[in-house]
Amino acid sequence: MNEQSMMGWLNQDIACVESLWLDRAVAHQNQLTKPPGSLGTLEEVAIRLCAMQQTLQPTLERVAIRVFAADHGVVSEGVSAFPQAVTVEMIRNFDAGGAAISVLAKNLGADFAVVNMGTASEAPQGAAIVQKPVAAGTANFCQEPAMTRQQLQQALQAGSDIAEQLASQQTQLFIGGEMGIGNTTSAAALACALLQRPATDIVGRGTGVDDAGWQRKVDAVQRALKRHHDVVAGQDAVAILQHLGGFEIAALAATYLRCAQLQIPSLVDGFICTAAALLAIRINPACDQWLFFSHQSAEAGHALVLRSIEARPLLQLNLRLGEGSGAATALPLLRLALELHNNMASFADAGVSQS
Amino acid sequence: MNEQSMMGWLNQDIACVESLWLDRAVAHQNQLTKPPGSLGTLEEVAIRLCAMQQTLQPTLERVAIRVFAADHGVVSEGVSAFPQAVTVEMIRNFDAGGAAISVLAKNLGADFAVVNMGTASEAPQGAAIVQKPVAAGTANFCQEPAMTRQQLQQALQAGSDIAEQLASQQTQLFIGGEMGIGNTTSAAALACALLQRPATDIVGRGTGVDDAGWQRKVDAVQRALKRHHDVVAGQDAVAILQHLGGFEIAALAATYLRCAQLQIPSLVDGFICTAAALLAIRINPACDQWLFFSHQSAEAGHALVLRSIEARPLLQLNLRLGEGSGAATALPLLRLALELHNNMASFADAGVSQS
Repeated sequence: MNEQSMMGWLNQDIACVESLWLDRAVAHQNQLTKPPGSLGTLEEVAIRLCAMQQTLQPTLERVAIRVFAADHGVVSEGVSAFPQAVTVEMIRNFDAGGAAISVLAKNLGADFAVVNMGTASEAPQGAAIVQKPVAAGTANFCQEPAMTRQQLQQALQAGSDIAEQLASQQTQLFIGGEMGIGNTTSAAALACALLQRPATDIVGRGTGVDDAGWQRKVDAVQRALKRHHDVVAGQDAVAILQHLGGFEIAALAATYLRCAQLQIPSLVDGFICTAAALLAIRINPACDQWLFFSHQSAEAGHALVLRSIEARPLLQLNLRLGEGSGAATALPLLRLALELHNNMASFADAGVSQS
Repeated sequence: MNEQSMMGWLNQDIACVESLWLDRAVAHQNQLTKPPGSLGTLEEVAIRLCAMQQTLQPTLERVAIRVFAADHGVVSEGVSAFPQAVTVEMIRNFDAGGAAISVLAKNLGADFAVVNMGTASEAPQGAAIVQKPVAAGTANFCQEPAMTRQQLQQALQAGSDIAEQLASQQTQLFIGGEMGIGNTTSAAALACALLQRPATDIVGRGTGVDDAGWQRKVDAVQRALKRHHDVVAGQDAVAILQHLGGFEIAALAATYLRCAQLQIPSLVDGFICTAAALLAIRINPACDQWLFFSHQSAEAGHALVLRSIEARPLLQLNLRLGEGSGAATALPLLRLALELHNNMASFADAGVSQS
C-alpha cells in the first residue's frame, strides 16, 4: 500500500460532541439539590460525559489502561538517570503487577495491558503484554530521524489497532500510559518543535537527572532541533513525530486520535502523554473534544504544553512518574462526578427551596 | 461546672506524629519501583498516614463523615441567595440520601450522619440525624454576640462528643462537613478577625449571591467587625468564635481538635471547614499535624485562609458546595496513595535497576 492508504485514516472525521446533549445535561444538573455550578469541574466533567455517551445516566465501568513502552536512541547522549535496561525490566514489572500503574489498574477495576512497541534488548512475554515491536528502539535523533517513514506508519497503526480493540470491547474511557528510558527528552524535543519554544523552556528533570544531566538533555534537544531544522520549520506534525518522536509516543497519539474517531474519550496522563495528545490535535484538531486532561506534572514543559491547547487538568500533585499513573489517579474524580450527576435528588423531589 | 472545667479539654496535649515512623515510611517509599519522589503529593500523604497509624501498611477503611448543620442570625441582613428554610430542608435531604455528600458517602463506603446543631425551624428526626441542638440558630452578630458563652461551650462539647464516638468505633479518618444558610458570612467574619484582613479581601459569593448580595455580605461583616472590635483586637480565638461563629463551625473546630487529641486525622473541606480548622489551630497549634486539606474552593477567602496556615490542598476544582463534598471527593486520592505505598514492588523484588 502507498503512504496515503496507510496513513489516510488519521484525517478521517471526528464526530462533534452534540450540543443538544450538553444542554440536556446542564438542565439536569441545574435541578439537583445544590447551588447551580457549585460542583465546579465535577459538573463540567459529568456534562461532557453525558454528551459523549448520549445519555443522562453515563457510567465509567469499562475503563481500559494501555501502557506503551519503547526504547530511545537518544539515551546514548546521557539524558536519563536510569539505564536503558529499565524499560524492559519495567515491562516485566507491569506484567507482574508490581508497578504503580498495575496497582492502580487493579484497584480501579480497569482492563490493563502493556504494549511493547520496541525495546533495545528483548522484551519478555507475558499475559498482560501485547507485542507490537517496531524496531529495537528509535535512532538517536541528534544524528538522524528517530524513525523511518515506514516505522512511523507501523507505530501509528499499532495505536489504531489498540483503539479498534477497545471499541470492540465497548470501552467507555481510554487511559494511555508510557514507559521508555529517554522519553522525556523525546517529548521535550517534540514540544519545542510544535510550540516553537527553546529547549530551556521545556526540558525538565524527567525521572530525576542532576544539573549536568539536565544540561545534556538541553544540549541534545538543541542539537536535534538544529539537525531537523527544516522539518521543524515546516510544522507538519506527522513529520515532526517521525524525526523527534518515539514509537510509544506515536502509538499514543494514534490511539487518542482513533479513539476520538470511534467516540471513545481519553484521559490524558502527564508530560509525555500530553505531547502525544498535542500531536493528535495538530494532526486532527477535532480530537480535542474527546480528551480529558488528568494532571499537571512537576515536569517543566508540561504546563506550557497544556496551556497551548487550553487544557485545564484535574489534578496538580507534583507527579512525575508517567506510566499513566496520574490519569489513573484522576479516574475516581470522573466516576464520582457521574455518581453525583446520576444519583442526587432534584429540588422538587427533595422538597428543597430554590434561590 | 465552671468554664475552666467545661473548656479545659481544648488545651490538652496533642501527640506529635513520630519522626521515627516518618523515616521508616520514607525508606519504604524509596525502594518502590519508581524514581524517588515521583509520586509527589501521593507519597507525602502515604508517609504521613504511616506515621499517624504507626504502621508501614496503613489503611483508610473506616472513614466517618459528619455534616454539622445550624442556622445563623445574620441571614436577616440579606446575605444569602437561599431562604433560611433550606437548612432544615437539606437536613432532611442528607438523611434521605439525596444530597451530594450523601451520594458521595454511600459510594465511598463511609459512615455518615448529619448533626443538627440548632435550626430556626424545627429539624426533622431521622435515622442519620444526630440531635445536638444548641438553640434555634445564632443571634445576628451584627448586633450582638453570635452566641452566649454557655452556648459556645455546648457547641464545642457536641464536637468533642462526636470525636469520642468516632474514636470508639476505631475511625481512621474524619471528614467534617457543614450546612447552614448564612454560614459563609460567619466564616468570612471569623477569617477577617483571625487574619486581620478587611471584609473585601475575604467575602465571596457563597452559594451564589449577586453583586448587591455580595455588598450586603461585606457590609454585614464590616459592621460585625466594628461591633466586636475589642474581641477582634484581643485575638483570643475562643472569644472570636463566640462572637462571630456558628454552632456548626464551633462543633467542627472542636471535632478537629478533639480528633487530633485522639490521634484521628481529619480531611478538611472548603472555606467554612477551613475557617473551623484555623480556629482549632489557633486554640491548640499542634492540631495542624493531624489535618489534611482536601481542596481550594472558588470562595474568595479560602486561598487566604489556606495560605495563613501553610496548607497545600489536594484539589482545585472550583467547588463551592460545602457539606464536606470536596473532602469526600479527595478521599480516593488518599486511598490510592496507600494502595501504591502498600502494594508496589520493590526494586529488589522486581529485578529493576536503580539510578
